[in-house]
Amino acid sequence: MQHTRLDLARIQAARAAIDPLFLNTPLYRCEPLEPVLGAQVSIKLETANPVGSFKGRGAEWVAHQAEQAGVQSLVCASAGNLGTALAWSGRRRDLDVTVVARRNAPRAKLERISALGAKLELVDGDFEVARERAVVLAHRDGAQLVEDSLDLRTCEGAGTIGLELAQSLSSFDTVLIALGGGAMATGVGYVLSRLAPDTEVVCVQPQEAPALTLSWRQRKVVTTETMNTIADGVAGRFPIPAVLDDLLLVADDAVLVAEESIVAGLRVLRERAGLVVEPSAALGVAAVLEDRERFEGKHVVTIVCGNNVDPDAYLGWVS
Amino acid sequence: MQHTRLDLARIQAARAAIDPLFLNTPLYRCEPLEPVLGAQVSIKLETANPVGSFKGRGAEWVAHQAEQAGVQSLVCASAGNLGTALAWSGRRRDLDVTVVARRNAPRAKLERISALGAKLELVDGDFEVARERAVVLAHRDGAQLVEDSLDLRTCEGAGTIGLELAQSLSSFDTVLIALGGGAMATGVGYVLSRLAPDTEVVCVQPQEAPALTLSWRQRKVVTTETMNTIADGVAGRFPIPAVLDDLLLVADDAVLVAEESIVAGLRVLRERAGLVVEPSAALGVAAVLEDRERFEGKHVVTIVCGNNVDPDAYLGWVS
Repeated sequence: MQHTRLDLARIQAARAAIDPLFLNTPLYRCEPLEPVLGAQVSIKLETANPVGSFKGRGAEWVAHQAEQAGVQSLVCASAGNLGTALAWSGRRRDLDVTVVARRNAPRAKLERISALGAKLELVDGDFEVARERAVVLAHRDGAQLVEDSLDLRTCEGAGTIGLELAQSLSSFDTVLIALGGGAMATGVGYVLSRLAPDTEVVCVQPQEAPALTLSWRQRKVVTTETMNTIADGVAGRFPIPAVLDDLLLVADDAVLVAEESIVAGLRVLRERAGLVVEPSAALGVAAVLEDRERFEGKHVVTIVCGNNVDPDAYLGWVS
Repeated sequence: MQHTRLDLARIQAARAAIDPLFLNTPLYRCEPLEPVLGAQVSIKLETANPVGSFKGRGAEWVAHQAEQAGVQSLVCASAGNLGTALAWSGRRRDLDVTVVARRNAPRAKLERISALGAKLELVDGDFEVARERAVVLAHRDGAQLVEDSLDLRTCEGAGTIGLELAQSLSSFDTVLIALGGGAMATGVGYVLSRLAPDTEVVCVQPQEAPALTLSWRQRKVVTTETMNTIADGVAGRFPIPAVLDDLLLVADDAVLVAEESIVAGLRVLRERAGLVVEPSAALGVAAVLEDRERFEGKHVVTIVCGNNVDPDAYLGWVS
């Protein structure tokens, strides 16, 4: 395969550094989902940990390396989950963590970040405004900037999910990965392309926040003027060129799903899998709901990547 | 300690025979629960597996031994979870499984049992009627009767949860265990009494189905005329003497909780832990909600033991 930024040895090194709390997450067939989805469905559950998302893996790897290098302060922009995870990993290592987030991010996420002792800086506007602000803050304060998906360590941390999928005794036809900035898709996709090349890697993004998918399809960075999705965790407008380059080499497909399919996915996961998840974690199920024929009879894994959601907003969607 | 029916070596043997899908379940601090409960709270999550409850552990051990012994047919009475688990474990070993259940058991549980290929026999009345019917069926058909909690293998399977708690790096002040027939309480309690004797073992049962708790308190079997709890998974009226004897030796306390506390527990687990669970799995949280002072500042683990619940009934409780 052509050269990506990713490297198997570094992902294995990440695995050794990450708190085992975040590793070897449940991977199981969830047959109650199958009559609805028309496929064999396995869940890779990334929510049953202290931060409620897969971001603990990358954050642990970042914080571990920061500690080794004598770095004192970290800054990240976050839709919420990276911020929560970095706050958790920083707290146990006495690192100062500043998280820049949208003022309108889910309250559940903002409260967790503060409760974990990180400094929270709120901005008006969307995630791209937070990203810019984080760059400025890191420069001003001499802190290390952790840019999700661009910082390879965030991809390598997520890549450890790929190691676990590849080492599973089951073989899967397709792995469905939520696509936002691209850390999870490139990390997991890279490992599967190396260790389980017959497994199809399908990225799933909301139609209403499609920048990286459009970029993947056109093989060049495409930005969007706006975005408008309930899947706050994957909402971005400015794809990162280096991440797109990696994604072009490791993803087999990138699909877009409608908002109503994301809501339907939330419902199905609650009713049939007993999981309250955030919208980004329902993207894989949404993709199957939108194209049952494509997945019929196949064995698909969907990575349930986060459960940090405002209870009221959630009830509004599912009831 | 005085003699119980349980034995560490057999529990370790069970662990070796159980499909790893059911082992090493997530065990994690869930800080969002803590402001509400006033204690440090860790969750031992037994729902992220193909059968949605901890019963897979015991069922695997039963089915493994049945296969080894050339047994062809198994019969159990079940509130639903043991039946689902035995159906799953039987299916992969080509064993015939018959499950006797209440006609009014949660539909989600009954449908799962049938979908897994077990024969479902429904009875009118409560769980005690199902137990009697299972005895008759096993005798008539020459099948092996698997009597939950009395059959030591069901306790030994559950006891493997205790091994995982005892091997955890964290030390816990208290483990909260849902109490029904007593398999989980005696299995986990026994292992903790041997391997982590400083950890308090607290059983939690609904006030409206209190037979085994009353028996534990009076140190003799106490039966009740009726029961009326939403926690269908732990609803029984006729404690088994041998199980009570074990429980008297391994439990430090047995508490009763009100129905409204169970509902409050369901809500808290949904809103703050992202978990849709069945009422039995909320008993531990209910116990802390009812007696915050007792647990204040302590580190408690609650075993979230099952998530098989009818979606409509669930929504009725939590909304």
